[in-house]
This record gives sequence, structure tokens and C-alpha cells, in this order.
Amino acid sequence: MDTLLRIGVLTVSDRASTGEYEDLGGPAIVDWLSIAIASPWEAVNRLVPDDQKQIEMSLRDLVDNEHCQLVFTTGGTGPAPRDVTPEATLAVSDRILPGFGELMRAVSHQYVLTAALSRQLGTIRGSSLLLNLPGNPKAISQILEGIFGAIPDCVALIGGPEIAVTESVTGGTSSPGPLHQINE
Amino acid sequence: MDTLLRIGVLTVSDRASTGEYEDLGGPAIVDWLSIAIASPWEAVNRLVPDDQKQIEMSLRDLVDNEHCQLVFTTGGTGPAPRDVTPEATLAVSDRILPGFGELMRAVSHQYVLTAALSRQLGTIRGSSLLLNLPGNPKAISQILEGIFGAIPDCVALIGGPEIAVTESVTGGTSSPGPLHQINE
Amino acid sequence: MDTLLRIGVLTVSDRASTGEYEDLGGPAIVDWLSIAIASPWEAVNRLVPDDQKQIEMSLRDLVDNEHCQLVFTTGGTGPAPRDVTPEATLAVSDRILPGFGELMRAVSHQYVLTAALSRQLGTIRGSSLLLNLPGNPKAISQILEGIFGAIPDCVALIGGPEIAVTESVTGGTSSPGPLHQINE
Repeated sequence: MDTLLRIGVLTVSDRASTGEYEDLGGPAIVDWLSIAIASPWEAVNRLVPDDQKQIEMSLRDLVDNEHCQLVFTTGGTGPAPRDVTPEATLAVSDRILPGFGELMRAVSHQYVLTAALSRQLGTIRGSSLLLNLPGNPKAISQILEGIFGAIPDCVALIGGPEIAVTESVTGGTSSPGPLHQINE
Repeated sequence: MDTLLRIGVLTVSDRASTGEYEDLGGPAIVDWLSIAIASPWEAVNRLVPDDQKQIEMSLRDLVDNEHCQLVFTTGGTGPAPRDVTPEATLAVSDRILPGFGELMRAVSHQYVLTAALSRQLGTIRGSSLLLNLPGNPKAISQILEGIFGAIPDCVALIGGPEIAVTESVTGGTSSPGPLHQINE
Repeated sequence: MDTLLRIGVLTVSDRASTGEYEDLGGPAIVDWLSIAIASPWEAVNRLVPDDQKQIEMSLRDLVDNEHCQLVFTTGGTGPAPRDVTPEATLAVSDRILPGFGELMRAVSHQYVLTAALSRQLGTIRGSSLLLNLPGNPKAISQILEGIFGAIPDCVALIGGPEIAVTESVTGGTSSPGPLHQINE
């Protein structure tokens, strides 16, 4: 496909949205993707407070108007009452891919005792893959490292453009190795 | 119990259902079970396209009319729009057993980077256990290997017949070992 | 916060509730917590049969009237028709924390082949954390060992009192170590 890959990056943070706090999550995602993705892509950034309606509106806008085939959120996935990113994501989604949430927590559990508290979701809206990431930049890298291998096939299977990954993701093989087949 | 164990094997595939493609998933399941199950059983096979209503009808038929106490599906669990096996399974089920989906993906993750894309479910309809398996024969074996140890106890707990397993499943002990107790 | 930590311990068992069988699950939870928690706390015990309405009433009472910020259930999480503890828990909850159920099953899988059969949930009702544990005392210890590290942060994030843990939980460090940061 010739469509340019567009990746939405939605920062969800009360403090970052008022400017009280610098948004570290959004840039951390873009930095990580810049190293991991070998094919052309562009980021579409958004920043909203921890408000369910505003998160939903931004997700719809990124998918429906901005035509992002892949959208990452950062922040708002914990158990605290203000954390509503998973609720907003679910509200705009057609399908859940439970394996992403499970894998993100399993990866995170290798680093922190509190991995079970995250309610991160992976979902599909139309032809786009939505993924909730944590707010902490270090945790973002750890989790993207653990899940990115599944993303190009997923985007392709739901109708998005091909995503070529760099050696940092494939482990040095450009052709799909034995670990890169799909079980469908 | 004296009831003969009947196992439904439902292949879900557009191409296999038109004859364009040989059904490999169904036979792979039957072959694996033939080695794993030591007690008497018989298979009841079905083949349908990736159509939610037809999958639901076949699942209902296998449980309600054919009296299968255990039903495996193969195929249709990925993220692509035509993949609707989990939706159909959920629609005819009374309860979800989330541990089966989690375990199937965790097992698959040892072999492929794309394990998180599978939406496989384990559920209960009446007194029957329904399990979604992938379409790929190799992946079917890997996953059955990883989950079968939990199946006989589950079938017994929901009212089905006793299932004796061969050494290939129990690890050489015919009596339940320390790994084979149930935490209830 | 100065509020005393109150922990609800709800045993769900037909046989224990009629006195036919000694309640082993409830005491096992209290014993384990007595070793793990260094700060002041008190237990509020309840015992009900495997009846969804009675479980729901007890959970509401423990949270709303007894002001337990943390509630453990024991028993009734398997696949058998009488097992309805997860249904009752879900019915009185505002939110699910899927990571707790996943982690409990992953921990249990290290010990038993049947871990996937458990439908244990972790949820939030108001400002309280509800966690379903199995009925077997040995399995209770194994699972509490595996999940307790995530509990103090969770209780604090949803508005509960601080919980100090003993060396048996923190691994000998009283200050949060590298494994004890939170990714939010």
C-alpha cells in the first residue's frame, strides 16, 4: 500500500494539559518509534486533560479525521478515580484485543511490582489500532520494546499500511524469522 | 460417569468451507487429541465459513443436539474484520473462563511475536467447555500442549465425563501429582 | 492518613457456612496478612454460602458499612455452577483491574496445571479494593505472595490508608527499591 503511515500520539494528563508539567510521555513515544520504524511515517500529536469526553473526542479525531492507522495514548491507565483513559478508549472502539493488555502488564511485571494496577487496553476502531501506554517514559520504552513485534502484522491485518521495522525490533533479521510467523 | 466423551471440532474458514483450501486445523486437533486422550471418545466435525451466525448455529448444535461436552474451534480468532469466531463463541456462552485465553496467548508468545493478536476464548455453555484454537496446525499443537492439563478437571467440574490422559500429558504419572491438584 | 486499615475477609463456602466443614480459607488469609503487614490493621470476618445475593450483600456491607478499604474473598471462583463469587464481585464493583486476575492465574500456574480454571477478579468498589482468592489455604499463600507487592500502592491510589509491609514482602528494603516504583 502507498498510504503514508500516520501515528497518533495522545498525551492524557491534567498537569501537562495546563502547562504546569512538561509532557514527557508523548515525546518518549515519538523518540522510541523513530528508532524502531524504518519505513516513512509521521506523528500527529494531541494533549488533553484526564477527562473522558475529551479523550474520546481526540481518539475519534485522530482515527476518523487525521486517518491515523495506529494511535498510542500515554497516561491515565491506573486505578485512581481520575484515570479514565481505558474507559475512553473502550467507548470509541469496535473490538478489544485482550492480548495487548495482558502482554503490556506481563512485560511491565518484569520491572515493577505494581504492573497489575495498569488497565491498559489494545483495541480496534475501524481500521486503526489503539494502544494505551503508561505515562512514565522509562515504562513506555520497556513496554514498546515488549509489544512492538506484534504491531506491524496487526496494522496490516486490519487494513493499514506496511510498517518496516529496524534491526532494533527484528533482532537483526530483515526477513521474518521463525519467531515472526503468524498463527491465525 | 458412563457417558461417552464427545468432542466437537468446528473448523471456521471461508476458504476451507468452499473447498478451495484443505481443512488442516480440524484434523490437527483430532490427531493431537488421539495421542493425548487415553479414555474412549469420539469426534463430531463441522466446517463453516467465517460467518458469525453460522458459527453460532454450529456451536449450539454441537452442544445442545450432539451433546459434545468439549468443543474446539479452529480459525477466525485474529484481528481481521472477517475473524468473528470469538464473537460467535461469546454469543452462545454462559460464562467466560479468562484464564484459557490468557494461557493460550502466553503459550503462543513463546513461539511467535504475534501471540497478542489472538482473541481466543475459553467459555462454558451449559455443561460444555468451548475453546477457540488458532487455524495453524503447528500452533494448534503448541497450544493444546500448553493448556490440555487443565481440561479434564474443567470438564468434570462442569458435569462432563471423566477424561483420562496419556503419559504425553501427565508427564508420566497416572495418579495426580503435586502439579495436578486443584486450587478451588 | 490516620484512618485505621480495615480488611474484610469473606469466606464463601456452602459447607463451611453450615458448619459441616471448618473454614480454613479465612484464617489462612488473616495469618498471611499478620506476617506481611507491619502497620496497624484489623480484620472483619464474614462467612456466607455460595449464593450470589448473599455474597453481594456481604461485600457491600464490608465496604459501605464496615469501611474496609481492602476486601479478600476466599472460595467460589472455579468453573462449577455453584461457583459465583466472581459474578457477585463484579455486580458490586465500579471497575475491574484485569491485571490482578491475570497475575493470580500466572502465579498459580507455577504450582498447578489447573490455574486457568480460576475466574478470580480484582476490582474497585468506591475507595476499596476487592480481591478474589481461591479456597485452598496453600494456594492462598502462593497467590498473596505473588500479588501483595501491588496492593499498598493500589489502596493508596484509590484513597485508602498507607500500608507498611514487612521484610517478607519488600525483600528486605524498607524504602522503595528499583522494583517498587510505579509506572503510571
